[in-house]
Amino acid sequence: MFLLVNLKTYEAGTGDAAVRVAEAARDVADETGVRVAVAPQAVDLRAVAETGVETFAQGVDGIGYGSSTGAIHPGAIARAGATGTLLNHSERRLRLAGIDDALNAARDVSLETVVCANNPAQSAAVAALEPDAVAVEPPELIGTGTPVSKADPDIITDTVDRVSEVSDTPVLCGAGITSGDDVESALELGAEGVLVASGVVKSESPRDAMLDLVT
Amino acid sequence: MFLLVNLKTYEAGTGDAAVRVAEAARDVADETGVRVAVAPQAVDLRAVAETGVETFAQGVDGIGYGSSTGAIHPGAIARAGATGTLLNHSERRLRLAGIDDALNAARDVSLETVVCANNPAQSAAVAALEPDAVAVEPPELIGTGTPVSKADPDIITDTVDRVSEVSDTPVLCGAGITSGDDVESALELGAEGVLVASGVVKSESPRDAMLDLVT
Amino acid sequence: MFLLVNLKTYEAGTGDAAVRVAEAARDVADETGVRVAVAPQAVDLRAVAETGVETFAQGVDGIGYGSSTGAIHPGAIARAGATGTLLNHSERRLRLAGIDDALNAARDVSLETVVCANNPAQSAAVAALEPDAVAVEPPELIGTGTPVSKADPDIITDTVDRVSEVSDTPVLCGAGITSGDDVESALELGAEGVLVASGVVKSESPRDAMLDLVT
Amino acid sequence: MFLLVNLKTYEAGTGDAAVRVAEAARDVADETGVRVAVAPQAVDLRAVAETGVETFAQGVDGIGYGSSTGAIHPGAIARAGATGTLLNHSERRLRLAGIDDALNAARDVSLETVVCANNPAQSAAVAALEPDAVAVEPPELIGTGTPVSKADPDIITDTVDRVSEVSDTPVLCGAGITSGDDVESALELGAEGVLVASGVVKSESPRDAMLDLVT
Repeated sequence: MFLLVNLKTYEAGTGDAAVRVAEAARDVADETGVRVAVAPQAVDLRAVAETGVETFAQGVDGIGYGSSTGAIHPGAIARAGATGTLLNHSERRLRLAGIDDALNAARDVSLETVVCANNPAQSAAVAALEPDAVAVEPPELIGTGTPVSKADPDIITDTVDRVSEVSDTPVLCGAGITSGDDVESALELGAEGVLVASGVVKSESPRDAMLDLVT
Repeated sequence: MFLLVNLKTYEAGTGDAAVRVAEAARDVADETGVRVAVAPQAVDLRAVAETGVETFAQGVDGIGYGSSTGAIHPGAIARAGATGTLLNHSERRLRLAGIDDALNAARDVSLETVVCANNPAQSAAVAALEPDAVAVEPPELIGTGTPVSKADPDIITDTVDRVSEVSDTPVLCGAGITSGDDVESALELGAEGVLVASGVVKSESPRDAMLDLVT
Repeated sequence: MFLLVNLKTYEAGTGDAAVRVAEAARDVADETGVRVAVAPQAVDLRAVAETGVETFAQGVDGIGYGSSTGAIHPGAIARAGATGTLLNHSERRLRLAGIDDALNAARDVSLETVVCANNPAQSAAVAALEPDAVAVEPPELIGTGTPVSKADPDIITDTVDRVSEVSDTPVLCGAGITSGDDVESALELGAEGVLVASGVVKSESPRDAMLDLVT
Repeated sequence: MFLLVNLKTYEAGTGDAAVRVAEAARDVADETGVRVAVAPQAVDLRAVAETGVETFAQGVDGIGYGSSTGAIHPGAIARAGATGTLLNHSERRLRLAGIDDALNAARDVSLETVVCANNPAQSAAVAALEPDAVAVEPPELIGTGTPVSKADPDIITDTVDRVSEVSDTPVLCGAGITSGDDVESALELGAEGVLVASGVVKSESPRDAMLDLVT
């Protein structure tokens, strides 16, 4: 079970608030033994990593060191303390060649990669590029509170099936997940972890929200 | 064996010149029995299709009818006489979700789909989306006259291998192909056809160039 | 007064239907003496131009002849009969440098240019690039039937003011315009023409809709 | 005179090395009284700002707080210590509407804005959007060591002229500037500051390189 908390650019996931969510995530991981990681904005990444929580970037560009103003360099992310990165989130979709380039650049600096996809077909396509995990997230359910594991369970099972035909890449899922029940359903359907965002970040107590999700 | 001639935006493949290449392609197909198609710019597509040659779009957008100023609508392309479309050419790379959307929109109007990819990994990813064919074209060889089938034969065999693990999608190849020898090598390596562009369009006699390629 | 009818990718503005709207536009222009142009999809452009109506592209790319698969080449558009082009429509926004490149490429082949912008500030920015006209269209009103000239008249007067400080580029306006009253308001506010789309293309009689707009 | 040092994603401008360049910039500003700012990657921004140097982002997105995975939020940048931001660098070109959105979002959090442009016409367009400064940088000279102020002085004077017709926005210039002579030429031509990158970041002693530029 892997819980990946995407802070997006929520105000409640920015700056000092990002650090507080990160500390809560670190404590929940320590207390429960469940793997929990946090994905902050790039500008907050170092401060989040310094809490000791497992830290992912929200994305990286498939570049080496050089003349790339405004890019997110995988090596810079790794030096700041990240051990992984999301890629191709539906709010930051990449070209197919860009996913491939970013995967190669992330592997060069030993960042773990979780590549998002909208549906089973795209998930299978991603699996062919051999990331560390693929995360299926139907865009229409993101941020709704209607969990993918209940609203559209076939998406998870179809994704697990389609991906397994291509490679042994583990499948995560996300979109609308806010309770431990939602997580349990997802795991029963074959997912090995979940992506969450507003359900944790915007809750009154991110700690309680995470505890509810992982226990 | 399938010869797909991409007219790009070469002056020698625009307007009346596009129609002349199309007529030559139609004649070569008729005389040799080899399948030959031509992919003109959208604005020349109807005139090219009216020659009777098999006609592909250079790309379509994954949209339905509606408010999409400046888009290439698959249905409009089909009505104008196209029977297929290229997608994700390295000169017009799409997001992964965009390839999936465009494939679905093309299938809705029965357009045959040939999706380009840069390398074996991306080709396998494309194959998971189940187009009618995948075309591997190393971008660094496009337009060079150095044929992929000689400069980098492993790219073709690796693509055929990787794609076959994912689906039974046929593999085409392209980049730098200018002679019948190049084509023969490509077919021996497992490709079922080739994409050509400058080698035909910019030749003094597109007819002779195509005859050389297919016989 | 200039009436520019954007056919977008409406089914009622595609293929044979595009030609019928074009014929109606040509007749309305002939009968009333008002300038009327039609902007079809690229694939329908030649057939529309052959009706004799003034024909605009929905956009062009800032490229010369060459290796640009899937692009809209200004010269190819001009050869097919277009005399002008829209640029930067809110459904196909361009980078600032891309607008500049496309304007230069369009001027090289003597295409008239109408560059869209969302608001007065962007319109003034466009005016500094010296297109033949700027068209202000608040995106939130496009397709609503709520005319910009009534819902937000200040946008038109502010645009005319801001643009006049930068250059003597004429200002068109669009979004939600469906009646002759809407047009009259726009002209009184300082616009020299209007962009329309669904109000004409999707009407039962495009001819009657255009007659209502121009008289 | 304003010296803005863009660290891009150079290895010599990443992580600890970014902090060292920032400390040198801070000291040069203190010792000479010349305004010097440093623009690091987002992930290094907080550490750079903590040196006390004036800190710019390399770019921000025109968004508010919310669901924007992977975006650079202006408010998050400001909270981390930035007081300004580059926008539309030629290595990260924005759509016209995106520049406008980003300017508005940056102004909301009181970030100073320096918008890059390729040539005099684009600079005048940018000036109409009323940023705090426009920086003209011919892309073909970036990173060459051939200074814009010598290779193409007309670009600077034309930009100053064109911009002054639109607004009183100050003009900076960049591309190829590596010596105090280059800077002096730029200022004589009407620029009020310069953008530098490799000339400082990749030099053996960024401190000496900056001292040479400002004295």
